[in-house]
Amino acid sequence: MPESKWPLLPVSEARRIILEHVQPLGTEERRFEDAQGYVLAEDVRAREPMPPFPASAKDGFAVIADDTTEWRRIVGDQFAGYDANLRVEYGTAARITTGAPVPQGANAVIMVEFSEVQGDRVRFTRRVEPGADIRPVGQDIAQGQVVLPTGTRLGPAELGLLATVGATRITVWKRPRIGVMSTGDELVEPDETPGPGQIRDANRFSLMAAVRETGAEALDLGLAPDTADALEAFIREGLRACDAIVTSGGVSMGELDLVKPLLERMGTVHFGRVSVKPGKPVTFATVDGKPFFAMPGFPVSSLVAFEIFARPALLRMAGWPLDAVERPRVPVVLDHDIRHGAARTEYQRAIVRFDRTDGRFHATTTGFQGSGRLLSMVGANALLELPEGRGDFHAGESVDALLIAPLKTE
Amino acid sequence: MPESKWPLLPVSEARRIILEHVQPLGTEERRFEDAQGYVLAEDVRAREPMPPFPASAKDGFAVIADDTTEWRRIVGDQFAGYDANLRVEYGTAARITTGAPVPQGANAVIMVEFSEVQGDRVRFTRRVEPGADIRPVGQDIAQGQVVLPTGTRLGPAELGLLATVGATRITVWKRPRIGVMSTGDELVEPDETPGPGQIRDANRFSLMAAVRETGAEALDLGLAPDTADALEAFIREGLRACDAIVTSGGVSMGELDLVKPLLERMGTVHFGRVSVKPGKPVTFATVDGKPFFAMPGFPVSSLVAFEIFARPALLRMAGWPLDAVERPRVPVVLDHDIRHGAARTEYQRAIVRFDRTDGRFHATTTGFQGSGRLLSMVGANALLELPEGRGDFHAGESVDALLIAPLKTE
Repeated sequence: MPESKWPLLPVSEARRIILEHVQPLGTEERRFEDAQGYVLAEDVRAREPMPPFPASAKDGFAVIADDTTEWRRIVGDQFAGYDANLRVEYGTAARITTGAPVPQGANAVIMVEFSEVQGDRVRFTRRVEPGADIRPVGQDIAQGQVVLPTGTRLGPAELGLLATVGATRITVWKRPRIGVMSTGDELVEPDETPGPGQIRDANRFSLMAAVRETGAEALDLGLAPDTADALEAFIREGLRACDAIVTSGGVSMGELDLVKPLLERMGTVHFGRVSVKPGKPVTFATVDGKPFFAMPGFPVSSLVAFEIFARPALLRMAGWPLDAVERPRVPVVLDHDIRHGAARTEYQRAIVRFDRTDGRFHATTTGFQGSGRLLSMVGANALLELPEGRGDFHAGESVDALLIAPLKTE
Repeated sequence: MPESKWPLLPVSEARRIILEHVQPLGTEERRFEDAQGYVLAEDVRAREPMPPFPASAKDGFAVIADDTTEWRRIVGDQFAGYDANLRVEYGTAARITTGAPVPQGANAVIMVEFSEVQGDRVRFTRRVEPGADIRPVGQDIAQGQVVLPTGTRLGPAELGLLATVGATRITVWKRPRIGVMSTGDELVEPDETPGPGQIRDANRFSLMAAVRETGAEALDLGLAPDTADALEAFIREGLRACDAIVTSGGVSMGELDLVKPLLERMGTVHFGRVSVKPGKPVTFATVDGKPFFAMPGFPVSSLVAFEIFARPALLRMAGWPLDAVERPRVPVVLDHDIRHGAARTEYQRAIVRFDRTDGRFHATTTGFQGSGRLLSMVGANALLELPEGRGDFHAGESVDALLIAPLKTE
């Protein structure tokens, strides 16, 4: 039997091809409270300055800074939330609370801790400079300023800024809806008891969770049927409901592997093999203009291939700027020998820890790296990238790691 | 006026006190598909080994490894998903697909790429060792093995493992529901146009987003009323609906600051000031046994105080192990001078980047660090921890940084 008809692409080439074929889906208007994790598709400007009036930064007294009067008359209270229309002159002061507008005439605030009050008089145990504890108009945000540029992902601080400037309806990139299916005659649902030769489907659930971790919506398309005609109808239905499809299984060379020939008939297969371990048969196609990611069937292969090939594409579809879709990449020192075949780029699951005693990142792999051993993903916060072109690595050597979860530092 | 009655606690002491007063909420049973992000409250064991039968790792032929017959008779097809009851003897081979059970008698699989078929005969261009491309019973998971210990946070790989072992109903720690309110007479809702002396509320929305980022549920309690009696009723109602409450505003020394005295009356105030900038008036209480985090009113102060004081507690309430609730901490080189007062521990917002040319982390702050300037949080992936006890820092000096978002590495 001949080798596969599909050329073995280098990882970087396969990733380049994918990102060439995906783009943000389109925009929609959303309430800002419902836009956490979305990406802005417009520049948001401040219509007013912030603060909009000279505001006290502390609880205390509004004064004239160079006033030398010992006991000053309290002209009134300026609490936050309204304008008491007070006027501070030499020999006087006004009570003021944090966030309240500074009365006319005053040019500084003295904190309450440095005041002594007797009746309607106050004296101070500290002098201050003009401007002290006053937040001038526009100190935080200038009128007309772009506070959040297009392409900004909306997290806690960004949502607070939108509230501050009153941008309660904003234009964001749509969130992709990703259909996930598993193929494989041996698969039964997790609630079933496997019969002879059967196992429970795991990939659909791990891939849906990985889809959701990117911020996209995951749609469970179920277990795919195993004849070409039924599978085609199944995929067509999935494509109608989704912006992209992720499958696992059915892409290696066996006679029952239906997915690749079907994708060739239904659309364009951009690549059908990549020089990567695990994940060599990973396939990328577009059908009706929609991305189709066909992952291998082994549980680890499908999750690693998703991470390397599908995740950047899903982020891009959600409007993330191209320079933000990659994981952090750091050089790590191997704490033990690692076996590695020179033929392919290999991604091994590892725990990476920054050690401040020697100022370096250290990596330990998560045990046996078999393609079926999902346990090798558990607790991993990194994928070690072992390049093609050279074999085994030794303890103390350095390789690159992609950080897929928070760094360990203790 | 005297200094505040509340002693100024060191940051570490305040954090210790909080973690002493929170614990995981309690457990519940959930479907595994609906448990992403939850923390396991039981050890999950595999009832069966994985794979449950000797399984082919490749598409190809099941053979006897030391069989030297050139052309072997194909005794049948063993596809995945059932047991074809084949038997391989010397001089024979069986077609097999990835994941299918290895027929009796066979002890190796030869990949289809190394086979040549003529009619019902096959010969091979490569020899293999016994065991080649066969995944033995229990290779990935041993029968009875704990696949996920209690305390494991459920991400994509973990959900896949639960599916694999058929653990479709699991016991997890409950997710906390956190009520968020803002206090401050100057606040109006984001959709309103502020009048004289008023500003739009931002904190409630940024704090709710920060709560959701921890995995907890956020409940919008709205803008709090500004009289003691109304506020007490408001807080009591919030406590009935929530496992903890986060407020902002109303905790500094002004005469209208109601929160601290009210909390003293309603429950126990564990601390009322911390030697931290921003966030000095941050207050932690328990009322009816429920944690109450009272954050300062400035937008940056409230978010930074949430990060330093409330986030670890919320994770702990959700069942995270104590050693997992802290952010990664790394030493960073300052790329510019930083002004810092020696009186308090200060957290400045910064962008931290790992530079592989010198092998060090570098930090640049995000501009003016005013407590009201939410823009200083935008784009920040770290908080620089400037310790109390010494003043300004200079470019080239090293400080610790807490990584609050993915590291930059390009």
